Amino acid sequence: MVSGNSTLAGARLRIGMVGGGPGAFIGGVHRIALQMDGQFALVAGAFSSDAAKSRQTGAELGLDPARTYASWAEMLDAEAKLPADQRIHALSIVTPNHVHFAPAKAALERGFHVICDKPLSITVEEADELERLVAKTKLRFCVTHNYTGYPMVRHARNLVQSGRLGTIRKVYVEYLQGWLSDRLEATGQKQAAWRSDPKQSGACGAMGDIGTHAANLAEHLTGSRLESLYAQLTTFVAGRVLDDDGMVLFKLANGANGSLAASQVCVGRENALSIRLFGTQGGLQWEQEKPNDLLVWWKDKAPELYRPGNGWVDDEAKTLQRIPAGHPEGYLEAFANLYRSFARAIRGEPDIASAHPSVSDGLAGMKFLRACVKSSKENGWVKV
Amino acid sequence: MVSGNSTLAGARLRIGMVGGGPGAFIGGVHRIALQMDGQFALVAGAFSSDAAKSRQTGAELGLDPARTYASWAEMLDAEAKLPADQRIHALSIVTPNHVHFAPAKAALERGFHVICDKPLSITVEEADELERLVAKTKLRFCVTHNYTGYPMVRHARNLVQSGRLGTIRKVYVEYLQGWLSDRLEATGQKQAAWRSDPKQSGACGAMGDIGTHAANLAEHLTGSRLESLYAQLTTFVAGRVLDDDGMVLFKLANGANGSLAASQVCVGRENALSIRLFGTQGGLQWEQEKPNDLLVWWKDKAPELYRPGNGWVDDEAKTLQRIPAGHPEGYLEAFANLYRSFARAIRGEPDIASAHPSVSDGLAGMKFLRACVKSSKENGWVKV
Amino acid sequence: MVSGNSTLAGARLRIGMVGGGPGAFIGGVHRIALQMDGQFALVAGAFSSDAAKSRQTGAELGLDPARTYASWAEMLDAEAKLPADQRIHALSIVTPNHVHFAPAKAALERGFHVICDKPLSITVEEADELERLVAKTKLRFCVTHNYTGYPMVRHARNLVQSGRLGTIRKVYVEYLQGWLSDRLEATGQKQAAWRSDPKQSGACGAMGDIGTHAANLAEHLTGSRLESLYAQLTTFVAGRVLDDDGMVLFKLANGANGSLAASQVCVGRENALSIRLFGTQGGLQWEQEKPNDLLVWWKDKAPELYRPGNGWVDDEAKTLQRIPAGHPEGYLEAFANLYRSFARAIRGEPDIASAHPSVSDGLAGMKFLRACVKSSKENGWVKV
Amino acid sequence: MVSGNSTLAGARLRIGMVGGGPGAFIGGVHRIALQMDGQFALVAGAFSSDAAKSRQTGAELGLDPARTYASWAEMLDAEAKLPADQRIHALSIVTPNHVHFAPAKAALERGFHVICDKPLSITVEEADELERLVAKTKLRFCVTHNYTGYPMVRHARNLVQSGRLGTIRKVYVEYLQGWLSDRLEATGQKQAAWRSDPKQSGACGAMGDIGTHAANLAEHLTGSRLESLYAQLTTFVAGRVLDDDGMVLFKLANGANGSLAASQVCVGRENALSIRLFGTQGGLQWEQEKPNDLLVWWKDKAPELYRPGNGWVDDEAKTLQRIPAGHPEGYLEAFANLYRSFARAIRGEPDIASAHPSVSDGLAGMKFLRACVKSSKENGWVKV
Repeated sequence: MVSGNSTLAGARLRIGMVGGGPGAFIGGVHRIALQMDGQFALVAGAFSSDAAKSRQTGAELGLDPARTYASWAEMLDAEAKLPADQRIHALSIVTPNHVHFAPAKAALERGFHVICDKPLSITVEEADELERLVAKTKLRFCVTHNYTGYPMVRHARNLVQSGRLGTIRKVYVEYLQGWLSDRLEATGQKQAAWRSDPKQSGACGAMGDIGTHAANLAEHLTGSRLESLYAQLTTFVAGRVLDDDGMVLFKLANGANGSLAASQVCVGRENALSIRLFGTQGGLQWEQEKPNDLLVWWKDKAPELYRPGNGWVDDEAKTLQRIPAGHPEGYLEAFANLYRSFARAIRGEPDIASAHPSVSDGLAGMKFLRACVKSSKENGWVKV
Repeated sequence: MVSGNSTLAGARLRIGMVGGGPGAFIGGVHRIALQMDGQFALVAGAFSSDAAKSRQTGAELGLDPARTYASWAEMLDAEAKLPADQRIHALSIVTPNHVHFAPAKAALERGFHVICDKPLSITVEEADELERLVAKTKLRFCVTHNYTGYPMVRHARNLVQSGRLGTIRKVYVEYLQGWLSDRLEATGQKQAAWRSDPKQSGACGAMGDIGTHAANLAEHLTGSRLESLYAQLTTFVAGRVLDDDGMVLFKLANGANGSLAASQVCVGRENALSIRLFGTQGGLQWEQEKPNDLLVWWKDKAPELYRPGNGWVDDEAKTLQRIPAGHPEGYLEAFANLYRSFARAIRGEPDIASAHPSVSDGLAGMKFLRACVKSSKENGWVKV
Repeated sequence: MVSGNSTLAGARLRIGMVGGGPGAFIGGVHRIALQMDGQFALVAGAFSSDAAKSRQTGAELGLDPARTYASWAEMLDAEAKLPADQRIHALSIVTPNHVHFAPAKAALERGFHVICDKPLSITVEEADELERLVAKTKLRFCVTHNYTGYPMVRHARNLVQSGRLGTIRKVYVEYLQGWLSDRLEATGQKQAAWRSDPKQSGACGAMGDIGTHAANLAEHLTGSRLESLYAQLTTFVAGRVLDDDGMVLFKLANGANGSLAASQVCVGRENALSIRLFGTQGGLQWEQEKPNDLLVWWKDKAPELYRPGNGWVDDEAKTLQRIPAGHPEGYLEAFANLYRSFARAIRGEPDIASAHPSVSDGLAGMKFLRACVKSSKENGWVKV
Repeated sequence: MVSGNSTLAGARLRIGMVGGGPGAFIGGVHRIALQMDGQFALVAGAFSSDAAKSRQTGAELGLDPARTYASWAEMLDAEAKLPADQRIHALSIVTPNHVHFAPAKAALERGFHVICDKPLSITVEEADELERLVAKTKLRFCVTHNYTGYPMVRHARNLVQSGRLGTIRKVYVEYLQGWLSDRLEATGQKQAAWRSDPKQSGACGAMGDIGTHAANLAEHLTGSRLESLYAQLTTFVAGRVLDDDGMVLFKLANGANGSLAASQVCVGRENALSIRLFGTQGGLQWEQEKPNDLLVWWKDKAPELYRPGNGWVDDEAKTLQRIPAGHPEGYLEAFANLYRSFARAIRGEPDIASAHPSVSDGLAGMKFLRACVKSSKENGWVKV
């Protein structure tokens, strides 16, 4: 087990990584994010299921070769045997979806905190098991719904949950991309390949890859779970097995309803995650590609434009920025914010700066995907 | 019957109006629009079902009191008896929805061209009858789906229909307003009152008032009709009878699918009609509140921003603007463009500048609304 | 002299026009603007110095041929002899700059109100004489600095002049176009030809054509005149005589300083007039190409976005819009607002809706141009 | 002297830092930037002129206490004596302006590469000496004109310098902030205090702090130096010694002219650096607060919107981004790009990814400031 928090303050937490070898995208993001604020030091890794590739990546990163492992299982075994002041505190899981559950479970069982890419697993059952294990071990588990790391998302959430927008009635959320509008996976492009393979990706394509982010954002802002939904999943590109497009109508537990769109065939759209929601007293809009602008509408006065770094921004949002107003922080900083909050949580500093998406958010995502598949197949509303 | 077109060239066409008395909104818009380009002279009117109010409006407009009538029926009878060089050429119908069908039918039967606000009628049967009557009389009939009058909408349509965006896959269209987020109709506000009264408005509230515009825009741009849909109509404001919000998933005849949102409870949104569509080669976005910007995405090159008045804009779009690039034209000009096209059509000048939304577009709108009500009630997909 | 105002209420004012024949741009704008709100009827015109062309335009507009004149002198003489209930109330002057002064003077001397395009004249002396004549005759004189007709400009002006932005320190104003980046006048293009000819345009090119609008906007918003300036006029296009570009540093009477840029060689810019100003408590930004957005910054709270048609907009600005929020009005409506205010002023209704740019604003424009030429030649600061 | 480049590949370069103690802003930025891409390890520092504070910062950063020094002089002496495989390769200077020259000079003399915040020094003479020293030692010297690190700035520069926009005629550049609109320095705020003190800041306030960035951006994009200028420096806030606002008209060596505005009293503006330039064939606009958008206008076709991560972006710009299109990178990443290029340059990899602002750019900045002060005092144009 990781030693007491009191000994952690000030020093970098040691972290290991599963995945993120040559050709990976999100592994590099995690590595930049984990070190940005000096909270973590990457000291171990099983970067690829190919041992040579794992070693290569470890060497490029300047890791101790003894701690560059051929598999995550080997890593967890070996690290657990190291003295408490050397072994990793936490495991970062950045593999394709089908390699999330097993290392997460094993890490928890060995006493390591876990930070894991989304979706949490391949099935709801796996996610359920992880949630139970977290409850039992009391370890920290962060699922990287990284868009919640943006200051203006957090400002928006607190605005909503304070009730200042009144009772929320409508939520429109969407995540549109265009990069899979052709059959890119047939060219061998690695990112496209695993995402379009049900064995690695799970039952969903676009909906799992990006739709879960959209669903999470709706839940994060409203503080309410999707209760029921009607989904229509489509595969536009011939030869592709999984959905590359989906539309969802949903009802939230708080009584609001809304729509969710996720698509990877919207030519020209880059990473267009956005949310708009409306309550009885006001509404708001946030767009990931302009993450530092939050537009807020009011029933009785002129709309306002919130931006990070200003005195009138929410206290929690203030903890998520590093530099003064007008110096744009972006995707990597938002990602790093999760790592920083995760570190604070590990260190036992449960303040406003330690909030991060939890294993329960990951489980909610899996239930969302299960419901989408079921609804789309049965062509009817289903409970989430 | 109206005399031959050859005698019409150069002179203003004479037009009468039904509706548009004190407190009306759209009547004033029609009056500005019809005279903007000197194509029509308003010479007759039955502006209110209250004869005194009709006379008052007529006097304010400087009309000959002899041609300010107490009812549309009286007007059509009287005008039909005037000599051909005095009587109206066309009737403009700007009444609440339930007073569209009867005067439209009567006008056609007396040989008058008709320009009528949307939705075309209260039932599909009425709309059907009007379409048959237009086919029989060969008179011109324009339904004021006015948003098709914007130059950039027309540029977008021609871009889509030329095939340059490839096969269209996705259409996202929405029309959001916030002005009915409270029960405004209970205060006696005239615009809110008739819109929320099923007797005057028909079976739909928000979906009829603004959703039909959104549906029409999707059809106008793609050149394809909505074939089937799944709709969920909601009434958020307590005490209101008709829907003030709706979400629709739909399939187009051309194989694309999409979503449509129409809401009047989105606090802070003013008149937020927008459309985005995506084909295999490109996509585009147009927003009514910034009507002079058309953003076009391409698979293989940087996105382009089209604006009216530039040499590279579509020829048809060029016919819809009056002043050089950078001098913004807006809602009234787009509305006037329909009147100008309607005039050219009446004059028998069937060029690119005479295209306008037809009685068939109006009929499609009524079928859309019928399908929305049926789908929402039955909770399933229906044919349009 | 025009008869008493009491007889004018309700009826259209009769107006004559000088200029605006075939190939003209601004004449058509004035004609749409003067009739938009039913305040004026165009009943007479001397549309071209070529009598045949004048008759042709008159016929196209449906004017009485007897009141389509061969020259403005003939028109003013003839109209003055007509009975009071037939002759024009006002003259609209839409000719090139060098034909502003003489008809304006003659019109005033015969008792006609005048609405005249900018710049007011060719020399300060002429402008001075017109100002004196207006003071003497007490007739209304509107110079069409049309950008002051936008609701959000008026909202901005009242915000500034109410003191809510504190003491104004900085004003940045600019008007950039690209259409004269080549020697378009050499192709015979009429708009380019007269603007680049000193005999028709006066001592300035771009600075007179568009720079005066920018200067007027700075003065309109601040309520303060330009007191001194340093100007640098440039001619980029070979073979052109007048400036096609200029930069000005200035000091306002109220103590603020600022810069003004006017250019017609900024390839790609359409009609990019914009102003930003900053006081000790706040600042604002307005851009002509997005005329319905006014962004206001505050020292101690989030910036606000003002748009026409909302309850929280300034009362005067409310008089300048016709349709609800979100239905964009544009350049023609702003222009029409000046005609409407001019009409209210003629009718003797001196309320907030009758404010319009005056002959004194026109004179200030001429002094601004004189100062620009002098400063640029002497390479030093000059008093305006 | 630093050992041969061949031994450097793959390992982190060792760097020391002067400045960046408690309360500093830019020091933290440099620290995030230097480690973001794993190119540098911070191993030594003299973080404050107060030895205790220096130690405190070193401890917080986890530095070896033996290499946390009480002064930069001590650090350079001590590091120079370390074995080649331990001592720093480079020095990062993040102190107030008056402590740039001396450590930079000393570092170069001891064989250390230097990366130094701007402005380079207090006087042109100092900057001149540094340039000569760099030429002599052939060490790398980077001045952190960090805004050149944005991918879209680099894309813009290559677009301009390729000639595709034609001959450049106009450059409008500005850098507006509002944070010094009150006398913040009187409150003891550290950032405000040193910037407004001539002893620490040099002869200029706003013009040195942010105006030099604007001037550098104009030169960077055009590849041409400011040749002459006319400047007007103003101090708006009572009790302040240095300028808090300035306006400059300038001529570039390539024949273009333009204007530069720098102000710290524009209430509400955060970090509004922007540039627009226009050539005979096209123009462009870039704004620091939306750094991932580059708008390009063309004479004969629709404007284009360039964004990082797309295939059609310039090759050099591609080296400056880490993650796919639509994942916004910001200020810290742009800053890190300079460190990465600096590292590549040190390692002797002189490819397109190793370009960075040089000591000559720093010298040009100092000449710009000297000219501004002279021009403003003499009220006339001066050679830069």
